[in-house]
Amino acid sequence: MSTPRIAIFPGSFDPFTVGHEQIVHQSLELFDKVIIAVGQSLSKTSLMSVEDRLQALRKTFASDSRVEAQSFRGLAINFARQNKARFLIRGLRSSSDFDYELPMAHTNRALAPELTTVFFPTAADRSFISSTLVREIVKNGGDFRAFVPAAFAALLRP
Amino acid sequence: MSTPRIAIFPGSFDPFTVGHEQIVHQSLELFDKVIIAVGQSLSKTSLMSVEDRLQALRKTFASDSRVEAQSFRGLAINFARQNKARFLIRGLRSSSDFDYELPMAHTNRALAPELTTVFFPTAADRSFISSTLVREIVKNGGDFRAFVPAAFAALLRP
Amino acid sequence: MSTPRIAIFPGSFDPFTVGHEQIVHQSLELFDKVIIAVGQSLSKTSLMSVEDRLQALRKTFASDSRVEAQSFRGLAINFARQNKARFLIRGLRSSSDFDYELPMAHTNRALAPELTTVFFPTAADRSFISSTLVREIVKNGGDFRAFVPAAFAALLRP
Amino acid sequence: MSTPRIAIFPGSFDPFTVGHEQIVHQSLELFDKVIIAVGQSLSKTSLMSVEDRLQALRKTFASDSRVEAQSFRGLAINFARQNKARFLIRGLRSSSDFDYELPMAHTNRALAPELTTVFFPTAADRSFISSTLVREIVKNGGDFRAFVPAAFAALLRP
Amino acid sequence: MSTPRIAIFPGSFDPFTVGHEQIVHQSLELFDKVIIAVGQSLSKTSLMSVEDRLQALRKTFASDSRVEAQSFRGLAINFARQNKARFLIRGLRSSSDFDYELPMAHTNRALAPELTTVFFPTAADRSFISSTLVREIVKNGGDFRAFVPAAFAALLRP
Amino acid sequence: MSTPRIAIFPGSFDPFTVGHEQIVHQSLELFDKVIIAVGQSLSKTSLMSVEDRLQALRKTFASDSRVEAQSFRGLAINFARQNKARFLIRGLRSSSDFDYELPMAHTNRALAPELTTVFFPTAADRSFISSTLVREIVKNGGDFRAFVPAAFAALLRP
Repeated sequence: MSTPRIAIFPGSFDPFTVGHEQIVHQSLELFDKVIIAVGQSLSKTSLMSVEDRLQALRKTFASDSRVEAQSFRGLAINFARQNKARFLIRGLRSSSDFDYELPMAHTNRALAPELTTVFFPTAADRSFISSTLVREIVKNGGDFRAFVPAAFAALLRP
Repeated sequence: MSTPRIAIFPGSFDPFTVGHEQIVHQSLELFDKVIIAVGQSLSKTSLMSVEDRLQALRKTFASDSRVEAQSFRGLAINFARQNKARFLIRGLRSSSDFDYELPMAHTNRALAPELTTVFFPTAADRSFISSTLVREIVKNGGDFRAFVPAAFAALLRP
Repeated sequence: MSTPRIAIFPGSFDPFTVGHEQIVHQSLELFDKVIIAVGQSLSKTSLMSVEDRLQALRKTFASDSRVEAQSFRGLAINFARQNKARFLIRGLRSSSDFDYELPMAHTNRALAPELTTVFFPTAADRSFISSTLVREIVKNGGDFRAFVPAAFAALLRP
Repeated sequence: MSTPRIAIFPGSFDPFTVGHEQIVHQSLELFDKVIIAVGQSLSKTSLMSVEDRLQALRKTFASDSRVEAQSFRGLAINFARQNKARFLIRGLRSSSDFDYELPMAHTNRALAPELTTVFFPTAADRSFISSTLVREIVKNGGDFRAFVPAAFAALLRP
Repeated sequence: MSTPRIAIFPGSFDPFTVGHEQIVHQSLELFDKVIIAVGQSLSKTSLMSVEDRLQALRKTFASDSRVEAQSFRGLAINFARQNKARFLIRGLRSSSDFDYELPMAHTNRALAPELTTVFFPTAADRSFISSTLVREIVKNGGDFRAFVPAAFAALLRP
Repeated sequence: MSTPRIAIFPGSFDPFTVGHEQIVHQSLELFDKVIIAVGQSLSKTSLMSVEDRLQALRKTFASDSRVEAQSFRGLAINFARQNKARFLIRGLRSSSDFDYELPMAHTNRALAPELTTVFFPTAADRSFISSTLVREIVKNGGDFRAFVPAAFAALLRP
């Protein structure tokens, strides 16, 4: 039990939602350190810059030193290794989430057998919130404030 | 970090499969103690007695003192509380598993908010193995030995 | 528009949950009369008698004369015809609900083309509540009160 | 019963299919007015112009004054409000449709609680027809005439 | 190519439906002989006797000598071996069918690697027809004739 | 038995994986000739050129004269007709694969009733391997060699 249990929580988080936030809180029950890893995707057109996402994440979890936010490029398994993380966290909202996540978890196990994928169920009342839908609401001027942490809402405000 | 991380892994385990075995091994990466909790269902007609299941489980994990096997009646959340377990483990083989598990996880969260459900993906090459199919094979005289730990195979042999 | 829009909401409702209750409220936005139709299944072992279910339903919707509760035997389409209902209501919590409901809707359309099946999505925060899980909680002495209307909780109390 | 029941049926409809057509016919059993709302997506490369879609829709439903076709920009909930529609119609062909629709329905409920999403099951023999597959057939010179209303087939003919 | 391609199509077929019938017709495009294998389940309460099912099957396919009907006990893989069949046919109506069939196919491959499972999609307009729903209709006096071959309808007539 | 049973196996195969390879081997149990048909998609940005894919496919199946590799444009049903193929092969890894494949199979049946779609289940231990994930690994410098046939690995090596 002497080595700390470090987990990464990789994603685009464009933006990070209150569903993601709940997954982080759940994983803190289990891990000594949780690194939120913001993927720098080249192809996707993003709503928020990676820098803005990192800044808002650090504000959101400012009171808990066990949570870090970093950006990464390339495969999540390499980022995990660089950070001595042996766990990879993913939230599951629905079976279509799971359909997407399972092959990824199996592929990661094939590439990095020492890394364990851990799934947490998103709370029912947040199970419909997705970054994709939030982006759609933001672009169309709708009220997105219930769906993201305050630090994100502040940056997304027009 | 001083309190030990105790998890229960509840199920019928009639019989326990090599898929379940892998979930236990994965969860030992994360928990200080894993209690395999064999539910005493009144209604189901079982292949193995609960006593046989417990005996075979203890043999299977004889070399690892962090694994315990116990039987329980009633709700899994009560068994967790009695054992000071704050985590409930479930394996996920497929999206139909998930469809069954998600409402259970949400219900358990509503009844016992202090208990966190943690899902692990079953390894791909064991993802098709179910207690139900093994029971069917056993009843029809098929060769089930690749699907269960040796201690179970020994008790199921005709 | 002169003929009233009558819908049946068939099910076992053993017990009726707050998820079902929300579906009734939603359907009242649309229909002039909603008949909750409690199926008298011969095979299933039930938690509540059909009489108790009807009584609790009538209490639950006592303030709204547009809601009726009746029992029925046989096919739901025949009960609909007897009550001049042209609509059949079903709630959808998840894709596994849908997998079960879709063939039923198609079969009903083949048998009774004049009857239209209408689906409503169950609210996210009630999407995990099922009669099956509530029965399990009741049988094991758990706290089920958040999951059923008060009139049902009163009858289920030990 | 004095206020008319107005529903919107939003979508891209590029092109509108005989599956969509059946959903409109089903919804006319229930609503006093159905507004087919053609979304003006900026990003998607379309097969038909929005104007062509509107023209073909108006021809398709020329004989029924309860059906309207309009284009809209932005969130469907705002379009609904502008048209005093309290219902939003969606067709369901399969569980993967449902997986996509459910979070949208929950999001719309969170943003506009007064708007009720109503799902209708697409008829079995039209359940495989999608705008995406029709576009693929059109682009590759295949025979698409069985899949779209005549007014659309006329405009899509090479 | 000198050895004939023999396939078994195992199931309960209580009753055999027009969906099953279409799967047999499709498989005759591919196989030299198709053996419809009626499982003699001990536990299930059946609508038709196994003898009646076999008799109606033989009548249904009387004009095609490539189709046989037999009953079997035990594992389908053993029945396949006894009949020198190297192929096992299953129809797929929906993803929930597939969720049930895939682990069975994988288990059969593990037990009998020489046996290949072949899936055919059920035609869309028969995709909702199941033996379970037909039994329900028969028991409740509904009109089931569109759902089963004539030889079955004759035996099911009250 | 006189006309040979010819099947096409259409796809992007960018790259072809060991999962695809197993589907080809399975289909050779059943067909006299299998044509791997590499679609020339205009829109997708590809990892490998169509020529490279064809070359690597021919190397992979060099020892079996029953396997051919060709490129095609347009609808797969037209390519099948040009090659006198009466069967179209698709592998199924998961229910989300099936959700995508079923409407395609129904559409193809509507367009070309003489063409039969045949599904084979991908082996469990290869069920998570997808061209999409392999492309991701290749782009990020990960080790993809376990996921593709040797002839593809040779061309993908940096």
